[in-house]
Amino acid sequence: MASSPALDRSVVEQIVRQIVLGNAAAPANKPTESGDKPAELMVSISARHCHLSDADVETLFGPGAKLTPEKDLYQDGFFAAAETVMIVGPRKRMLPNVRVLGPTRPYSQVELAFTDSISLGIDAPVRHSGNIKGTPGCVLVGPKGVVELQEGVIRAARHVHMSNKDAERYGVKNGDFMKLRIESPQCTVVFEDLLVRADATSKLEVHIDTDEGNACFLDGATKVELQKQEGDCKCKH
Amino acid sequence: MASSPALDRSVVEQIVRQIVLGNAAAPANKPTESGDKPAELMVSISARHCHLSDADVETLFGPGAKLTPEKDLYQDGFFAAAETVMIVGPRKRMLPNVRVLGPTRPYSQVELAFTDSISLGIDAPVRHSGNIKGTPGCVLVGPKGVVELQEGVIRAARHVHMSNKDAERYGVKNGDFMKLRIESPQCTVVFEDLLVRADATSKLEVHIDTDEGNACFLDGATKVELQKQEGDCKCKH
Repeated sequence: MASSPALDRSVVEQIVRQIVLGNAAAPANKPTESGDKPAELMVSISARHCHLSDADVETLFGPGAKLTPEKDLYQDGFFAAAETVMIVGPRKRMLPNVRVLGPTRPYSQVELAFTDSISLGIDAPVRHSGNIKGTPGCVLVGPKGVVELQEGVIRAARHVHMSNKDAERYGVKNGDFMKLRIESPQCTVVFEDLLVRADATSKLEVHIDTDEGNACFLDGATKVELQKQEGDCKCKH
Repeated sequence: MASSPALDRSVVEQIVRQIVLGNAAAPANKPTESGDKPAELMVSISARHCHLSDADVETLFGPGAKLTPEKDLYQDGFFAAAETVMIVGPRKRMLPNVRVLGPTRPYSQVELAFTDSISLGIDAPVRHSGNIKGTPGCVLVGPKGVVELQEGVIRAARHVHMSNKDAERYGVKNGDFMKLRIESPQCTVVFEDLLVRADATSKLEVHIDTDEGNACFLDGATKVELQKQEGDCKCKH
């Protein structure tokens, strides 16, 4: 793969800041079937990034341009691209070098942490990926052109990808909510409202944003655990 | 009070972003004594800020300089000063206009969110205020001089101030830990490890940082609740 002079390695790395500590595909209070090996629990921090449509890739990077895979993400088929864009907010504040993730999608979408949206001056609502109707827009600037998005700027709601088999092990189904407890010295956090996105092929992986990852100091975590939204509580009551 | 042309109003405002929704000084499972009115629960986000010693105030702002109270904080006697400093990290990255809080203290101390410390390139440990031994230093730049701190850069650990009477109502004592649950649309969070700092006069107030406030979207919260670290659980088990 050709290296790009514009590549900001730390941004690519931040997109895939991950921790694997859990081993919780089978809740402790539910006997694991013989041979039903629990999956590892991967927790990934998604730094700010954008998804682009084919048309917007061509506008931003030139006619005929395609995204250049730079680093594979944990989910098969997804990648951080070599390409970045500048995101400009309504008051001309901007975020330079925001990573593009591939593959392309039917609609372009920008995913920010709240810290980013505050610094841009955009009031990004919490939405699940793809649900962008009525969300704020922004301007994307690439080396060959500019795209004005009418909508598509969101704070991605926390979620967990898993296979249907993992979902069955946890006793949940696609569309349910779970809790993620991250035990970290002096800053343990339980994230509720974690949407289950289960399908035939996804690997078990939680996606949180940089604010969430920093709030619980994910890099220093000693334990990560998925729990059902109701129940699985270890309190003494 | 004279207005300062350098005043960044939004920074002062961010220091006191607060929400009052709770009414939880008496846990629901503990009958409130007659006439024992529960205190309101104030949750405040502390934006990055610093505390200075008298000597450092004079070095940074000139001989004989004193801090100028600009805005009273919720706890009696504490204030956001009109003064700000620039904080410079080890790789010459800097944060401009970091608010000074008063009154002065025996030792200077810089309190950052993780997002700030990452952008500065300082590996700030989670510490309780005042416990700065062995923490990283930084350079403070003021209009009249520069101070090189050998230590004192921390991420302030989340905590709750309260009176001894409130502590008694919650069934906790100074030095105990509690949990703070912030219910927010699609991003509810439970913060564990909330240190109780109880004394005769403090008002009931939680302090979290901007990463924590953004992770749970405090501004959009519909309910805030203090819980004992063990127990007070509302799960169905």
